[in-house]
Amino acid sequence: MTDTDPHLAPPVRPAGPTAQRPLPAGAATITGGFWGERLETNRTHALLGGYDRLEEAGMLRNLHIAAGTVDGEVTPLIFADSDVYKWLEAVAYEIGRTGDEQLLALQRRVTAWIAAAQSEDGYLNTVHDQRLGTDRRWSNLTDNHELYCAGHLIQAAIAQHRCTGDTGLLEVATRFADLIATTFGPEGRDGTPGHPEIEMALVELFRETGERRYLATAEFFLDRRGHGVLHAERGVNPTYYSDRVPVRETTSVEGHAVRAVYLAAGATDRAIETEDAGHLAQQEALFEDMMRTKAFVSGGLGSRWEGESFGAPYELPTDRGYAETCAAIAAVQWAWRLLLATGRPRYAEAIEHLLYNAVLPGVSLDGTAYFYVNPLQVRSGAVVGDPRDPAGGRQGWFDCACCPPNVMRTLASLAQYVATAEEQGLSLHQYAQGSYRCGDPGSGGELAVDVVTDYPADGRIEVTVTAAPSAPASLTLRVPSWASGYVLDAPGHLERADDTAGAVQLRGTFAPGDRIVLELPMTARFVVGHPRNDAVAGSVALFRGPLLFALEQQDQAPGTDIEQLAVLPDQPVRLAPTPTTLSALPSGALPALSLSARHLHPGSAEPYPAWGTAPQVGEQADVLAIPYFAWANRATGPMRVWIPALPATT
Amino acid sequence: MTDTDPHLAPPVRPAGPTAQRPLPAGAATITGGFWGERLETNRTHALLGGYDRLEEAGMLRNLHIAAGTVDGEVTPLIFADSDVYKWLEAVAYEIGRTGDEQLLALQRRVTAWIAAAQSEDGYLNTVHDQRLGTDRRWSNLTDNHELYCAGHLIQAAIAQHRCTGDTGLLEVATRFADLIATTFGPEGRDGTPGHPEIEMALVELFRETGERRYLATAEFFLDRRGHGVLHAERGVNPTYYSDRVPVRETTSVEGHAVRAVYLAAGATDRAIETEDAGHLAQQEALFEDMMRTKAFVSGGLGSRWEGESFGAPYELPTDRGYAETCAAIAAVQWAWRLLLATGRPRYAEAIEHLLYNAVLPGVSLDGTAYFYVNPLQVRSGAVVGDPRDPAGGRQGWFDCACCPPNVMRTLASLAQYVATAEEQGLSLHQYAQGSYRCGDPGSGGELAVDVVTDYPADGRIEVTVTAAPSAPASLTLRVPSWASGYVLDAPGHLERADDTAGAVQLRGTFAPGDRIVLELPMTARFVVGHPRNDAVAGSVALFRGPLLFALEQQDQAPGTDIEQLAVLPDQPVRLAPTPTTLSALPSGALPALSLSARHLHPGSAEPYPAWGTAPQVGEQADVLAIPYFAWANRATGPMRVWIPALPATT
Repeated sequence: MTDTDPHLAPPVRPAGPTAQRPLPAGAATITGGFWGERLETNRTHALLGGYDRLEEAGMLRNLHIAAGTVDGEVTPLIFADSDVYKWLEAVAYEIGRTGDEQLLALQRRVTAWIAAAQSEDGYLNTVHDQRLGTDRRWSNLTDNHELYCAGHLIQAAIAQHRCTGDTGLLEVATRFADLIATTFGPEGRDGTPGHPEIEMALVELFRETGERRYLATAEFFLDRRGHGVLHAERGVNPTYYSDRVPVRETTSVEGHAVRAVYLAAGATDRAIETEDAGHLAQQEALFEDMMRTKAFVSGGLGSRWEGESFGAPYELPTDRGYAETCAAIAAVQWAWRLLLATGRPRYAEAIEHLLYNAVLPGVSLDGTAYFYVNPLQVRSGAVVGDPRDPAGGRQGWFDCACCPPNVMRTLASLAQYVATAEEQGLSLHQYAQGSYRCGDPGSGGELAVDVVTDYPADGRIEVTVTAAPSAPASLTLRVPSWASGYVLDAPGHLERADDTAGAVQLRGTFAPGDRIVLELPMTARFVVGHPRNDAVAGSVALFRGPLLFALEQQDQAPGTDIEQLAVLPDQPVRLAPTPTTLSALPSGALPALSLSARHLHPGSAEPYPAWGTAPQVGEQADVLAIPYFAWANRATGPMRVWIPALPATT
Repeated sequence: MTDTDPHLAPPVRPAGPTAQRPLPAGAATITGGFWGERLETNRTHALLGGYDRLEEAGMLRNLHIAAGTVDGEVTPLIFADSDVYKWLEAVAYEIGRTGDEQLLALQRRVTAWIAAAQSEDGYLNTVHDQRLGTDRRWSNLTDNHELYCAGHLIQAAIAQHRCTGDTGLLEVATRFADLIATTFGPEGRDGTPGHPEIEMALVELFRETGERRYLATAEFFLDRRGHGVLHAERGVNPTYYSDRVPVRETTSVEGHAVRAVYLAAGATDRAIETEDAGHLAQQEALFEDMMRTKAFVSGGLGSRWEGESFGAPYELPTDRGYAETCAAIAAVQWAWRLLLATGRPRYAEAIEHLLYNAVLPGVSLDGTAYFYVNPLQVRSGAVVGDPRDPAGGRQGWFDCACCPPNVMRTLASLAQYVATAEEQGLSLHQYAQGSYRCGDPGSGGELAVDVVTDYPADGRIEVTVTAAPSAPASLTLRVPSWASGYVLDAPGHLERADDTAGAVQLRGTFAPGDRIVLELPMTARFVVGHPRNDAVAGSVALFRGPLLFALEQQDQAPGTDIEQLAVLPDQPVRLAPTPTTLSALPSGALPALSLSARHLHPGSAEPYPAWGTAPQVGEQADVLAIPYFAWANRATGPMRVWIPALPATT
């Protein structure tokens, strides 16, 4: 039975003690503004269209073949089922968010198909069983993604249950999880999943059901990792699989980026539920190392096309960076767990950075086309040899379609990432127009606020208290690290606490109608790279507020070539009109910036001329920058984020 | 029958008119100096060791299985035979160079095995027939490398015949070539080879045998390319295969680098033999475009690991550049054909640049270990996920062992690239200690010289005439583009012609004992990249003479970190003692250079700090650079070629 009222529920709901708690189901609602428009686009175009894409790609037919209701061959993709599950998870959030009846009908239809496809013993993987046969189940954990698909099934089932009250998928998922829990473990067989995902899913299933055996199985997989099980099975190089080093001893993420970060999210879940402070501290250090040495300026993760993998520290190429959309989503999930566990605003800032600059670039403004790969530069003359290559433009779907439904589930659940309940009140981590509340309305203990803002186009955030407990409470607002000089205007009866940790806390007895205004300074700023970040030596990137900016060739005046420019970062940057070709799209309020640059001319006809004939600095040009996430929504052409800088002394 | 005297013969011997002609068999001998040591190492370690590597890898056993003399399964690598052929080609040159009896015995043994493995109808591919069956021959030209292997067979056979007089392999090769010529063509079946190589081999077989049908078949393959045959066969993306654009219309190399450049070499061969000036001009333009927009500063080719391929113009990452050793060898082959066709010293300079800085880095100083991939930077903290990754050090062999025997055949035939016969005399293109002669000694028309030099460690090249025709003749010495201010000392009875084209020509009546001394200025020089070459913006690379230099961390003083340095290119660069750990190796005279740099310190703990906190320039450091080709011959650790530059005004 579905509840009549929509109530978006948290994807992650720790059972162990955490500094911050997710808001309960229905307590967070985005009602408009920048994210409101993104979420509506996600519903109307992506989620409904997603069903059609899954059908076209044969993923739904796979279910019928497995159920025996249709004859034929399943698709070759061994993890095809996971795309269905991720889409179903997104659908569940969306039903929780809006009560969409059309999606509810689709949810029930597809859930019934999945249940029909499940084996008697609980096993479920349409492609594996049909292509490889039931006797080869679990025979190749390295490649066959059975546990990966199971993880996505479990996550979708939990979302469906929490957000819609339906139990159909949860029954399927727990049957499969029971099979997994009895199959693997000290009493059962050994195993390391080739693609992590099952770990966080099993921890969450423990949280949802209270059954500790799911947690124990997750712990088994986490503890066996890094001990050569995959190498023994298939002779593979363990690096790619994050299987070179035991999980607790890892100091730097490596190998396939999505694998590495999903694994870390699962490890952090386990640290929370086992109240293992040492493990949590190691996970925090691992996250810091990743963001410091292996993240692009966009927050994007994964330096290499080969193996979709992390590279060496500071190996961060602008043009061939992989920065898979899924890896950024994985990092949001990991940062969210660390935020709940520790309460450190640093993780909320990372989530914001990742969402705007590494997740959103992966989907078109109209919600119908995707990037799998998100580099910081595309050159003129690029020849496209792969459908994932952004030089070929956004794609409606991919053969390996992990990214599109991953974006869908992230956006549909986004309101749950905006705010949390802290010890005595509410903490706002993201600034999205909407309503957020914590505490128990029945007992008069509820603190509820409405947020109104045009952020990130504008830095003004108005928070109005709509319900307040009679007892003293707290309201915490995150202050981004770039927002020095911010102004907070709050009623005098509220006490303002120290904000050194990246947030400002108001304490006291709140009253309905209390209005707090946070003004974040939206001054454009240039950033540089670490001295070891060779690919961006001598160059700058441009931010305004949380948004990274990029130059697209199509926005420049004739004669201005973005590939032969140097920017003057000591000159002022001005807000500029958004190009009409861009503002005509469902883009929300998109700021554009005008900056001063100079043309660069080769000093010689030689490809590598002598130092004395270094590139010559030519005439001045004003160039236009748009938010990086909005690139490639018109023609897909040359684009760049990093630009050589000319200091004022030059 | 083998001639009793060694006589290294030219790999390429155009039949059509060319500006330069290869020296005849036995007319070019490297006797010592830098290249003499490389060649001896190639003979004693690489070529003899190569037989053992082929045996260990199962390549020789494949022949016995195909011949039916051994039972078992062939190796899975579909182009395994080509490694045997390339090694045999190298062996033939080496027998031609030195008369090595041990290699001659191996040549005859392996040739007999190959002959035994050949089918009745002439077809020969051990892996294809054994694994896929004879009825699937030619069924998948996209992937199955039958024509690629045939091309290497033909090249090896021609080398064997020209250098050793043995006809065994040539009989095998012509039987196979006859089958190919009757199978493919307007009267036969359509087809485009997935991996070019057969084109230049068939043209050379025409040159060797005079049979025009081989040239016609090469033309057929070249003309059918770029017309969708591979896409029709397998649905592949044509870019990777250089099959997107017809060969005559190509303006920029793309896709898999070795494929693209082997194809171009074959197209140039065809342009020569058909006396097609327009096609030759297009090939010259294509070469220029490649070297200007798609070559690393080392001359290395292929920007991407994925697809071992060229990237967009100016996509030239320092750290993940692929720069496959084979691609550089392919470029040497192409440039050699263009040099013969046009006589332009520019191509000889390209060959020198490629040999020192893109081919030689692919083999260890002791000739026993290889790099497949040759980037310009390896970082600390690199995690190795692939045996080809240079961060893991040089390897004795590779699963895909194309590079090692390709290096062997290039080195063993090197003397033939040093000099050519021009209209009335001799042209020296490379400076390698040895003896070179042209013309007919029988008729008294021979011009012969001995070259003595420590080049490239030293810029002094002494050329002594040892035989001279009675009629006036010419001797041309190439002058590298970096050698402005060179000094040429020649007897007064010789007239000196204009040298604007990159060479200086002496004309007159030569006499034995005439001594010409060319002094090339070996001043170290820094170079910069094109403004579009973003990966090296603001950085410099260091050359001295033809040699590119690199920093290895192990050569620096404690406390000097090559990953956080900026060089002062306006300060003098000094010759420095070669590190004893390096000079202890069979390295020849290896120059080392000391240059002035300053430490760089992060301006902030943030990974991407604000422009105002750009990296801080710290204390001065003297750093040591060694020739790039000599890196990774001790411990394999951090290395870099490009270094940020601090202009004098800073």
